[in-house]
Amino acid sequence: MNKTRKSVINVFVAAIITSALSMNICAQQAPAAAVTPAARPAFQRPPVIISPQLLPDNRVTFRLMANEATSVSVTGDWMPMGKSENLIKSDTGLWTVTLGPLKPEFYGYSFTVNGVRVLDPSNAQLKRDGTRNENVLLVPGAESDLYIIKDVSHGTLSKVWYKSPVLNLTRRMYVYTPAGYENGTGKYPVLYLLHGAGGDEDAWTTLGRACQILDNLIAQGKARPMIVVMTNGNANQAAAPGEAPSVNVLSAQVPSNPASMANGKFEESVVKDVIPYVESHFRVLANKENRAIAGLSMGGAQTQTIANNNPGMFNYIGVFSMGIMNFGPQTADAAKVEQERNDKIEVLKNSGYKLYWVGVGTEDFLYQSVQTLRKTLDSHNFKYTYRETPGGHTWANWRIYLSELTPLLFK
Amino acid sequence: MNKTRKSVINVFVAAIITSALSMNICAQQAPAAAVTPAARPAFQRPPVIISPQLLPDNRVTFRLMANEATSVSVTGDWMPMGKSENLIKSDTGLWTVTLGPLKPEFYGYSFTVNGVRVLDPSNAQLKRDGTRNENVLLVPGAESDLYIIKDVSHGTLSKVWYKSPVLNLTRRMYVYTPAGYENGTGKYPVLYLLHGAGGDEDAWTTLGRACQILDNLIAQGKARPMIVVMTNGNANQAAAPGEAPSVNVLSAQVPSNPASMANGKFEESVVKDVIPYVESHFRVLANKENRAIAGLSMGGAQTQTIANNNPGMFNYIGVFSMGIMNFGPQTADAAKVEQERNDKIEVLKNSGYKLYWVGVGTEDFLYQSVQTLRKTLDSHNFKYTYRETPGGHTWANWRIYLSELTPLLFK
Repeated sequence: MNKTRKSVINVFVAAIITSALSMNICAQQAPAAAVTPAARPAFQRPPVIISPQLLPDNRVTFRLMANEATSVSVTGDWMPMGKSENLIKSDTGLWTVTLGPLKPEFYGYSFTVNGVRVLDPSNAQLKRDGTRNENVLLVPGAESDLYIIKDVSHGTLSKVWYKSPVLNLTRRMYVYTPAGYENGTGKYPVLYLLHGAGGDEDAWTTLGRACQILDNLIAQGKARPMIVVMTNGNANQAAAPGEAPSVNVLSAQVPSNPASMANGKFEESVVKDVIPYVESHFRVLANKENRAIAGLSMGGAQTQTIANNNPGMFNYIGVFSMGIMNFGPQTADAAKVEQERNDKIEVLKNSGYKLYWVGVGTEDFLYQSVQTLRKTLDSHNFKYTYRETPGGHTWANWRIYLSELTPLLFK
Repeated sequence: MNKTRKSVINVFVAAIITSALSMNICAQQAPAAAVTPAARPAFQRPPVIISPQLLPDNRVTFRLMANEATSVSVTGDWMPMGKSENLIKSDTGLWTVTLGPLKPEFYGYSFTVNGVRVLDPSNAQLKRDGTRNENVLLVPGAESDLYIIKDVSHGTLSKVWYKSPVLNLTRRMYVYTPAGYENGTGKYPVLYLLHGAGGDEDAWTTLGRACQILDNLIAQGKARPMIVVMTNGNANQAAAPGEAPSVNVLSAQVPSNPASMANGKFEESVVKDVIPYVESHFRVLANKENRAIAGLSMGGAQTQTIANNNPGMFNYIGVFSMGIMNFGPQTADAAKVEQERNDKIEVLKNSGYKLYWVGVGTEDFLYQSVQTLRKTLDSHNFKYTYRETPGGHTWANWRIYLSELTPLLFK
């Protein structure tokens, strides 16, 4: 074997070994040493930076190698909006800060280097919230226990394309089928789960940890095995950014009518396109008793519209962080809209339903709208379950609401 | 309606509208203006930065707002390894550079700000290569046409968990089922598609654009509708980083024996765990004529091992950017390994197969190993198809190989 050949092989072997090692530098468990050099039998590799490093007391150390930077800070959603903490530079150019202890939660964070938002290059785990990517930091513990991937049976997550004649698009949705679905012949109840403004069909699984919550609740016997259908609630979008043909991206880029976000077409397509597709392509218990719908924020408004317009279709309705907002001036038109809504709520009540679940955070900027919804429902003697949590208009709350709603479904 | 309430509603309406707009700032089509202010009826938002902006002649403008930075550069995989181009700062703090024209391709790129690698905050579209995230830049044209999401029927991509008794793990794999699978009752041929060192079950769909390549080739009638199964080829890993229970992440973090990456257990699990699962849970033509296996780099080595160890199992075998490497000194053991391989190749030849496809780039650091494989196959009079491309050990080449191999399968 000549020398060049041997060197090439050494590099490859080293690549395999260091790949195997570096594949894990983003693991958030505490390793023996903070900064360990990678195995490098044949070539130089920069030292492996461990960040974030979760300490046994739930404090977290963040590290960034940035020799030429003059300021580095970290911001995460355990801090009040707009706050950050500075990292301190060592003479090797490694910036470090230890924060916390942090409450168990599924957090997002990012660095700012000389005024520019920077994702932690030591942490490959990201979550996308609309157009913004953040690093993931999962602090384990009681409060985040349902969000952790455990050694339980896992459902399958499928990215499914379906035709939407109502929206004149071929669209993508995510479908969670519970563990055992592929093995059996049984039929399942379905939860239709809607995201908020700025989100898309990816949001509930990445930001909302829907698969983990369902896997864990089902494994604990707390929720019935169910199918969860997560649509894209933006009527002018076929799929998440970059996941649809560009013709659709372009048409979404400059919406000819911004009101198309709220023109009722998406709500119509759930009933005319999505539900028929799901009920004909999956093994579904296709009746009111086994049909639920829930949504957050914009999706909470859509949920109300869909439920109001289709009495007798859903036995379970969940409205997260959204109530009733009366846009614009109180004209005769607005009064007509309100009267129509009242009529529909009365029909929905009389059609019968098992659960109408409303949740909101006390600091949510839509808190008042939820109180308006409650007053309206009360005025109809319309029964509902109300859940108030601390916090605002956040995924931390929506994960809690999903965790609390799903055990109540189909029982 | 009081003033606070009205202001809250205005903010919410603005949030919906600007979400709808900002959702699209990462679109790579050329908008009318380079930097357009978002609609902001009620509150201030920073100006929307369009980056990357693809110009009509396939030049690309990159932009980053970084008022406090003193150096900003961009590096992308259209440049030689280690190269970058500087961006120039304007007096508003906006850094800009226009590069190209670029050849149509599915590129990755990132910025460097004061020495720190930074993802383009204007572009939410990322791809992960092992532990490293990059921004996506798709330059459309003939060479990248198969990688573009088009208005054709799309297959479903499912993230499936299966038990692997061989590896003692519950593991995740991705399964592509072609358009029409859910509607029909027919059975399909299957391609088992393996990634390289540093990758995982996600690699072929994000870096390899496997769904787009298959969707487009099938829509054009060039490839048969087929199921594509993409496993995680790291024997000590249950799933991609962050996607498996932490107990498994931990065990992967410090592999007690780095050779576990190449101990043959993964190869065994493909035959004993993966194929039986797929053939019992999907509508599969479960015979040699309808079974193919292919892999790149480490996956190309695994493909050879699996094919050699299971003569008569696969009619189609694809080996990308990998040949035969003789590790270590040429001891008696090594001679024994070589003799065993030669015996197996002879048995594989006599078992019959339809296609053995080998592809490599002329600049690939494993180029010589592929020539060793060819000499070995030639010495057995073992027929194979050989494809040599420009370039190195890159996803650009592996996408081409998948595009060229799949039309040859199951025909």
